Amino acid sequence: MALIVQKYGGSSVGDVERIRNVAKRVARWFHEGNQVVVVVSAMRGVTDSLLSMAKQISDIPDEREMDMLLATGEQTTIALTAMALHSMNIPAISMTGAQAGIITDEVHTKAKIQNITPQLIHQRLGEGKVVIVAGFQGQTLHGQLTTLGRGGSDLTAIALASALRADICQIYTDVDGVYTTDPRICPAAAKLQEISYDEMLELASSGAKVMQSRSVEFAKKFGVLFEVRSSLNDNPGTIVKEETQSMEDVVIRGVSLDKNQAKVTLVGVQDKPGYAARAFRALSDGNINVDMIVQNVSHGSNPPTTDISFTVDKPDIPKALKLLQTIREALGVREILSDEGIGKISIVGVGMKSHSGVASSLFETLATENINIQMISTSEIRISVVVDQKDAEKGVRAIHKVFLE
Amino acid sequence: MALIVQKYGGSSVGDVERIRNVAKRVARWFHEGNQVVVVVSAMRGVTDSLLSMAKQISDIPDEREMDMLLATGEQTTIALTAMALHSMNIPAISMTGAQAGIITDEVHTKAKIQNITPQLIHQRLGEGKVVIVAGFQGQTLHGQLTTLGRGGSDLTAIALASALRADICQIYTDVDGVYTTDPRICPAAAKLQEISYDEMLELASSGAKVMQSRSVEFAKKFGVLFEVRSSLNDNPGTIVKEETQSMEDVVIRGVSLDKNQAKVTLVGVQDKPGYAARAFRALSDGNINVDMIVQNVSHGSNPPTTDISFTVDKPDIPKALKLLQTIREALGVREILSDEGIGKISIVGVGMKSHSGVASSLFETLATENINIQMISTSEIRISVVVDQKDAEKGVRAIHKVFLE
Repeated sequence: MALIVQKYGGSSVGDVERIRNVAKRVARWFHEGNQVVVVVSAMRGVTDSLLSMAKQISDIPDEREMDMLLATGEQTTIALTAMALHSMNIPAISMTGAQAGIITDEVHTKAKIQNITPQLIHQRLGEGKVVIVAGFQGQTLHGQLTTLGRGGSDLTAIALASALRADICQIYTDVDGVYTTDPRICPAAAKLQEISYDEMLELASSGAKVMQSRSVEFAKKFGVLFEVRSSLNDNPGTIVKEETQSMEDVVIRGVSLDKNQAKVTLVGVQDKPGYAARAFRALSDGNINVDMIVQNVSHGSNPPTTDISFTVDKPDIPKALKLLQTIREALGVREILSDEGIGKISIVGVGMKSHSGVASSLFETLATENINIQMISTSEIRISVVVDQKDAEKGVRAIHKVFLE
Repeated sequence: MALIVQKYGGSSVGDVERIRNVAKRVARWFHEGNQVVVVVSAMRGVTDSLLSMAKQISDIPDEREMDMLLATGEQTTIALTAMALHSMNIPAISMTGAQAGIITDEVHTKAKIQNITPQLIHQRLGEGKVVIVAGFQGQTLHGQLTTLGRGGSDLTAIALASALRADICQIYTDVDGVYTTDPRICPAAAKLQEISYDEMLELASSGAKVMQSRSVEFAKKFGVLFEVRSSLNDNPGTIVKEETQSMEDVVIRGVSLDKNQAKVTLVGVQDKPGYAARAFRALSDGNINVDMIVQNVSHGSNPPTTDISFTVDKPDIPKALKLLQTIREALGVREILSDEGIGKISIVGVGMKSHSGVASSLFETLATENINIQMISTSEIRISVVVDQKDAEKGVRAIHKVFLE
């Protein structure tokens, strides 16, 4: 007998029929003798329709009230899921985030889980019940409803698995697991049996959006083993866990492609301490996240200048350019260039730490395909390159062939 | 400055535009310097759509889960109403029933309010905020969500008015107030300025469905003065309050017509102790409410028999007849007759207590119109007669003319 936490997202509970399918799946695990805690999201479309009503009423809806509103979405799903289990004669009870003992900080719409008191869940499990918990929500110590922001239901599941000391946390999605790369780009892509937290994090931040990074980070911090698997079939998924010795035998775990970034180049920034910092301060004050940053060596001009390139999310480009214009003269920038036609290819693997020559193999592979590299950045277990968007998918396929087939 | 509790029903908050209108109305009372607590129902249609999803999943949905599901309806409305007030720059905060301190018993889907701890509402009012409370819901001492059943939002408003010692409780509806009779039947019907709790209760139980009786009973028990008024205009409504001396000057407050009852007659019941009781026990065990009961004097037959007539809600007729058939022989009943073509006319007024001759005036009025009376029943402040349904509206108009014009 195991204690299993299962999480089903909005499309898995998208209508009454799908909720019934979720209940059937839960029933199987329950009948095999497991204790099951089910975390569900709002039915697909519900959150959007609530958001749309709020937007009709107010351009900037109050965040506390937004949480009050959005929390109804998951509450609806837990009740219906419990009813579906009842109709299969399975004892089940639903709990809101608050009832499940999920205490968060006071930051409405993107609250952080501070503490979970899982006594009541344990008690209900002990009574032989399946417990259905509303994902994405909690309450503050003062009884205010909060929501956890994007990917919040994954976070609920992983945090509950940790607090309950569950044997495994299963994240059900509409994909079979984590792949070596996007199968739509590269038909040779293969499902991974396992992946380390760090690899998963690097892949996520490189554009492979199976899960939000914060949930993976939480799982890593508390050592929660979880499985990403499909709610449409019974195939085993991908286990995400602590890095093991054997994982290092694989040099590259996966290749990802992010086409949602754009490149900005500041030409001729004065090469003095603090000048570059002012540009990035302006961007961060404008809530714009900067991903890769590359600074070339100084030109020999007088005063010495340099070129700085960086990438931001494509939708942020207009705002970024506007902000940079305001400080352009102060920084002595000659020109501000932007390019939305880029793709960022990343290879990720803990094996990189113990294998040399990975970067040169990567560069050679792209050179063979006649693909020009515009920017490079690396971490201990990742190498990312920016290339022309039209070359990006060809590049991914070539890299996948060399490293992963 | 007064403390006002206002209640808006499902049609008053039926869509975003109507919620905005409610907010405008609340804003006016707030700007006049009043402290305002607003109780809202689920948006019209929302509860039905939740019920329909539940029915698709389960024929007999679990009542605890039903409460979990239905409670989302009001929670949605409070958040949107608070946002609408914010967009008018009025400080406002929403509270679920649980947050508002409404404690109920454990009877899911028709819970009774046991206690209200209004400290938090007072605190928010003291901060200058409008407080928006979800009607129809509360929580048990063990933190389970409950709903109060039909008319629950009225009950929330009146119970809050009592707990908060509010100066007045305003129940906003789609009618202007309580009328001397249904204006659709009798164009001469006039809006009442005031009415006593008992008169309101008798009218409600006689078919005038402005409010559920339990809310009026609660108001009577705790002496909560309330006003029934329209959410579509600014006309003063009808004040419902303790009976005063001056109220007795008016003999008849109103006339109501209930066309939703049917008559059953048991012909030839043996006139022995306990025989009639068995018939009504069978009906009450089947959850069928019996309203009027008339038993004629015994026939001189041997053994002596009598005829018993009573009325039940029309939709209960098939079930009632089935139940009565099962005990027919045991009671020696010769025949069971039913008639769905009846109307029950009631005249109500505390003045009846001190005025004689009301009944005879009523009977004479109907006789003048050539309307035959099938059954009669009376309380201290009400006289009801059952007549043929085709005569009923004509009877109401004649009675209104004699007693109220």
